[in-house]
Amino acid sequence: MRSIEIYDTTLRDGAQGEGVNFSLDDKVAIARRLDAFGIDYIEGGYPLSNPKDAEFFQRLAEQPLKHSKVCAFGMTRRRGMECKDDPGMKALVESQAAVVTIVGKTSDFHVAEVLRVSNEENLAMIRDTVAYFVGLGREVIYDAEHFFDGWKANPEYAALTIQAAAEAGALRVVMCDTNGGSMPEEVAELTRAAAKTIDVPLGIHTHNDCELAIANALASIDAGAVQVQGTINGLGERCGNADLISVMANLGLKKQGYQVLGGAAAARLTELSRYVYEVGNMHFRSNQPFVGASAFAHKGGMHVHAINRVAESYEHIPPESVGNTRRVLVSELSGRSNIIALATKMNLAEDKTLMDRVLRDVVDRENRGYQYEAAEASFSLLVQKLAGSYTPHFELEKFHTIVESRGAGAVTEASVKLRIGEQVRHEVAEGDGPVNALDAALRKALADHFPQLAQMHLVDYKVRVINSEAATAASVRVVIESRDSDGEVWGTVGVDENVIQASWDALVDSIEYKLCKS
Amino acid sequence: MRSIEIYDTTLRDGAQGEGVNFSLDDKVAIARRLDAFGIDYIEGGYPLSNPKDAEFFQRLAEQPLKHSKVCAFGMTRRRGMECKDDPGMKALVESQAAVVTIVGKTSDFHVAEVLRVSNEENLAMIRDTVAYFVGLGREVIYDAEHFFDGWKANPEYAALTIQAAAEAGALRVVMCDTNGGSMPEEVAELTRAAAKTIDVPLGIHTHNDCELAIANALASIDAGAVQVQGTINGLGERCGNADLISVMANLGLKKQGYQVLGGAAAARLTELSRYVYEVGNMHFRSNQPFVGASAFAHKGGMHVHAINRVAESYEHIPPESVGNTRRVLVSELSGRSNIIALATKMNLAEDKTLMDRVLRDVVDRENRGYQYEAAEASFSLLVQKLAGSYTPHFELEKFHTIVESRGAGAVTEASVKLRIGEQVRHEVAEGDGPVNALDAALRKALADHFPQLAQMHLVDYKVRVINSEAATAASVRVVIESRDSDGEVWGTVGVDENVIQASWDALVDSIEYKLCKS
Repeated sequence: MRSIEIYDTTLRDGAQGEGVNFSLDDKVAIARRLDAFGIDYIEGGYPLSNPKDAEFFQRLAEQPLKHSKVCAFGMTRRRGMECKDDPGMKALVESQAAVVTIVGKTSDFHVAEVLRVSNEENLAMIRDTVAYFVGLGREVIYDAEHFFDGWKANPEYAALTIQAAAEAGALRVVMCDTNGGSMPEEVAELTRAAAKTIDVPLGIHTHNDCELAIANALASIDAGAVQVQGTINGLGERCGNADLISVMANLGLKKQGYQVLGGAAAARLTELSRYVYEVGNMHFRSNQPFVGASAFAHKGGMHVHAINRVAESYEHIPPESVGNTRRVLVSELSGRSNIIALATKMNLAEDKTLMDRVLRDVVDRENRGYQYEAAEASFSLLVQKLAGSYTPHFELEKFHTIVESRGAGAVTEASVKLRIGEQVRHEVAEGDGPVNALDAALRKALADHFPQLAQMHLVDYKVRVINSEAATAASVRVVIESRDSDGEVWGTVGVDENVIQASWDALVDSIEYKLCKS
Repeated sequence: MRSIEIYDTTLRDGAQGEGVNFSLDDKVAIARRLDAFGIDYIEGGYPLSNPKDAEFFQRLAEQPLKHSKVCAFGMTRRRGMECKDDPGMKALVESQAAVVTIVGKTSDFHVAEVLRVSNEENLAMIRDTVAYFVGLGREVIYDAEHFFDGWKANPEYAALTIQAAAEAGALRVVMCDTNGGSMPEEVAELTRAAAKTIDVPLGIHTHNDCELAIANALASIDAGAVQVQGTINGLGERCGNADLISVMANLGLKKQGYQVLGGAAAARLTELSRYVYEVGNMHFRSNQPFVGASAFAHKGGMHVHAINRVAESYEHIPPESVGNTRRVLVSELSGRSNIIALATKMNLAEDKTLMDRVLRDVVDRENRGYQYEAAEASFSLLVQKLAGSYTPHFELEKFHTIVESRGAGAVTEASVKLRIGEQVRHEVAEGDGPVNALDAALRKALADHFPQLAQMHLVDYKVRVINSEAATAASVRVVIESRDSDGEVWGTVGVDENVIQASWDALVDSIEYKLCKS
């Protein structure tokens, strides 16, 4: 059983990803969570590059992590300069991080074209920088940039660069597939070549440009690497870094002979993944391997049927082993068994008469264009209605919308007249479009009675024409996604010939679902 | 140079994905696009499972594809039944598809627990079904479900199942990693084992549950498989199928010794990927390998700096080789090559000044949410406007829509006031929804001047929220598809905060396009 070190760079390489934006507090919170999770190394940032990263290290120095080693990232010293005078080196020293990660050039092409120094000066820059921090008592991890591309172009020179780092005292030499362009067989072969060249234990840092980040990391580990670098959820520039979630799940649960983080962490992977999304204010990726909401979701009728017989038939691991859950989706392809599974979750399956009624109603509605796969909230309201256990919180007397335009900048207004218990409310509001105006008028009418509606908001709105041959005169399906302040997200659906009526129906379901749950 | 066959199952396995919903027209449109792209095999659906799939095959039988072989999917015959009496077999025969893909069980565990027949009966079901379709002159592809799990559990029985398919005349035997749980080294080893067991050429069908779908497909091909199955953009149940975009790019551009689709298709991969997203009304995945908007985007200061010196420093392939574009600044420039390709088609690319103006305008519009991939008619009008060669056939004074509902059956009315040359027309009409009513009023106002408008009608209407965090208050993009009596189909786009204004803009473009061409 080989233990593989997990090196997280969510806060440095991950933060380079498009749409990724961590505040200082976010970074500290994520670092503490990674620490509690048991991650071996946490790369916190590049202190020279911005004050936020420098401050991050100060915050961790004041209140240190319990388990993880904190790493500060920087480049080799500048050409023709001593380390002690180099601003980058000073920033790393000031970070007080126990581990310093130094990136240097492996490729003579990059040495000449990007760095514009001689091959010998590049070797001296690597050697001096590593030796400088070793001399200061820091652990040094050496990141060999463009390792694979550099080795393929000039193996002799590439070997000299990692030898320079090894001889200067680097604790680990990490082979970076910087551009993400390597194939697993190349990664395996060059890992073996590196292991023959130096005695320092090797690490692997991969990117997903060929959709092979995970395979490349695993191939390198199989070939001898002891450390793997990546980010939570695969955040990172371009197509992202290796997703440590998948790396840890594959090493801990799937591949033979490996262990990560002492072996106990897998069941908390889903929680960790979602925590990082939440802190970063990013959408979950529903089809994410292991931890996505769809990772153990079953739609095809044949499969769902089989699942009811043998749970593991169509699952490669039990969802609980990574802290995820099984979901059975309602859809046109599914037939009866999906609906039964969903109703079972709602504890309704034993009522055979009700189940028959639900099934008949769903089939009828699907024929009219309803889809409940992304609208479980509407489905649950439907079941409650058919069970007779549902009383609406308000009733529509009428709604009215107007859109008028004289070119661009249309003017929109909506009014709603509702009966809420004994009271009648008639309210009007403007909006950016008719649905937005209806939503505003509806909230205005309901706010006094149901102040909890302020906690929810709409997060997505989609429209599809169902019978597309008839286009705008055909039925349309509207799907609305709403989110509560506690993070719960639910989908509702409306179908009508009129897009405004369909939107209204989906809107009302969304609000009723919220009112039923609170 | 080994040629690898590409087998697309976007329309069958891809349609099982959560949130994937293709109408019949969508399926036909995608099939024709895949055909034009040069895909070897297109699996269209499972005709027994729903009438839409059965109708799909009828549509393709009436107007056949030019290049691709169409495959209909089904299971082995039911137990204790002759093929000629089995409804599944009948549906496959009626599909008239030249290729029949039959899925059968490899795993004796599944034979006993899910199928609940004897091991011998399962072998007979495989043999009979394959032989039945071979006897009818169809090409048969045999999909070995749970191949890897089944082989690991009981290699002797697994071998018997694929031997049964091979002896009965299957053209290909495809090894399915149904649950997506296999590791690349296992896939390679068992591919070699299968190749020793049967002489029929092998295919590989993988899923992404361990984030290894691409690696597993490539490992199997390296070990001898000649066909790879997957979906465009990796659509599919749970974590998706192998993304054929990445498979084709890796085989065609990255790995040595392989060729796909005759070698010419790579530069159109980005266009193909986005087309399928657009037709399916799905969001692009910006970090998608090779074709995502971020795949060649550079954010890190160091990288952008290096790119300015040596373009390929931080890119594993030139973005143009897959039809994608480099993005260095925070610009949303996407599909530049598409735009140039479109302008070239219009004989405008030689006018450098105009091209620059078009590109700048398109970048600006893309930042506001426009997408021209599915809206070539709007693009061609835009170019004409920028070239100064466009005079509108009518001008809007104002439009006005009302929707009022007292429950169900909303009442809708729209009026339009237009200036047509010297004349002003003010007309009102009802409709099933506001867009339908606007379309009716617009046609009423234009009918006397432009009787040819009676030849065209709208065939599809799609709405997407662009900035989904703000939901109904954000911008929406409307895409309208129209069809002429001569069969020509064109797409137009409108973007606005107001869905009615955006629909109006797309509607006007559609009508202007028709008036320009006649």
